[in-house]
Amino acid sequence: MGDLKLHGTASSPFVYRVIWALKLKGLDYEYVEEDLSNKSDLLLKYNPVYKRVPVLIHGGKPVAESSVILEYIEETWPHNPLLSADPHEKAVARFWSKFGDDKRPTIVGILIKVGEEQEKAIQDSLEVLKILEEHGLGEKEFFGGETIGLADMALGWMAYWMCMMEEAAGVKLFEEHKFPRLFKWTRNFKEFPIIKENLPDRNELLAYYKSLRKMID
Amino acid sequence: MGDLKLHGTASSPFVYRVIWALKLKGLDYEYVEEDLSNKSDLLLKYNPVYKRVPVLIHGGKPVAESSVILEYIEETWPHNPLLSADPHEKAVARFWSKFGDDKRPTIVGILIKVGEEQEKAIQDSLEVLKILEEHGLGEKEFFGGETIGLADMALGWMAYWMCMMEEAAGVKLFEEHKFPRLFKWTRNFKEFPIIKENLPDRNELLAYYKSLRKMID
Repeated sequence: MGDLKLHGTASSPFVYRVIWALKLKGLDYEYVEEDLSNKSDLLLKYNPVYKRVPVLIHGGKPVAESSVILEYIEETWPHNPLLSADPHEKAVARFWSKFGDDKRPTIVGILIKVGEEQEKAIQDSLEVLKILEEHGLGEKEFFGGETIGLADMALGWMAYWMCMMEEAAGVKLFEEHKFPRLFKWTRNFKEFPIIKENLPDRNELLAYYKSLRKMID
Repeated sequence: MGDLKLHGTASSPFVYRVIWALKLKGLDYEYVEEDLSNKSDLLLKYNPVYKRVPVLIHGGKPVAESSVILEYIEETWPHNPLLSADPHEKAVARFWSKFGDDKRPTIVGILIKVGEEQEKAIQDSLEVLKILEEHGLGEKEFFGGETIGLADMALGWMAYWMCMMEEAAGVKLFEEHKFPRLFKWTRNFKEFPIIKENLPDRNELLAYYKSLRKMID
């Protein structure tokens, strides 16, 4: 237990992807909640470059950046794999994981921008969803193939956090009739036991996004 | 030979990192030069999401995004490794590779921005170099440890392309007395045989950056 620690914050999808990976592997860990307005000395010591969560500490050694942490978990504990054994399928999973990270600022724009800039964020976000719908899943249940994996966890913020961003911003992009495959994926994802049992509180998250929006509007 | 193809452009550091990895592994491949003002149907077919180079095609299957391609090459041909066998060292290499990609737009700002925005790009770029100097290399020769690896290749644009950006923009940030470790690394990197033998023409690259700067100024 003392050997594996995760520094995180309760609402971050970047932290949750690490929690999901640890749970999928069945690993015990100690969770340390960070107050980002008053970061702990340990966080600053473990991640002096970005000074942000998540940071996983294993045997005293820190690993930072959630996408790097997922790869570290996969290599250190290879059972219940996060990635296919096939190098091409692995590459496809990493591609979509990176795509989601690259496009996240676009989608967050629907919540934190106003006026014409928000309208542009909405149009750009629809393009992002369209690409994922047309090229991402194909006939697969999950981005990782038959079961949940690294790409699904990396894209998990779209399955759960995004609808609350939409609600707080008063917009609706992610509709079932427009994106049927992606919509089905969000349902499969949220119903997957380790995901279902490990999600932040819906009301708290929505209240947080609404308060953020109120400051901007 | 026909089994492995790389679509690229002659001046892109993202393409060169793939070339270096293929050369390090001693792999034969066919190189297909793309005209980005008139992209080939094959490029659009192989990378419909980003429509950009590099794309590696192996046995008919495409892999896009240079950081994903490097991992694919490493897994498919594990000899002459790009990554340490130790999961923590791997994580450190991936961290710096990602850091370089995250911060590249900041440094490119010294070339493509003007006035106050350029001044901000210069200050932010100095911070990026400072972080790499203080936290990146330590006493190591390369970011990968004793020899060249994935992180060095990912950061290769700083060792070769950056000084030409500086020259074209008429600024000088990357000075030996300020960043001695990083400066030593650029020398080691450029002297490493597969790198030395596979770099774009200095004069052509400088002329390209100068013409870009002329359009902006």
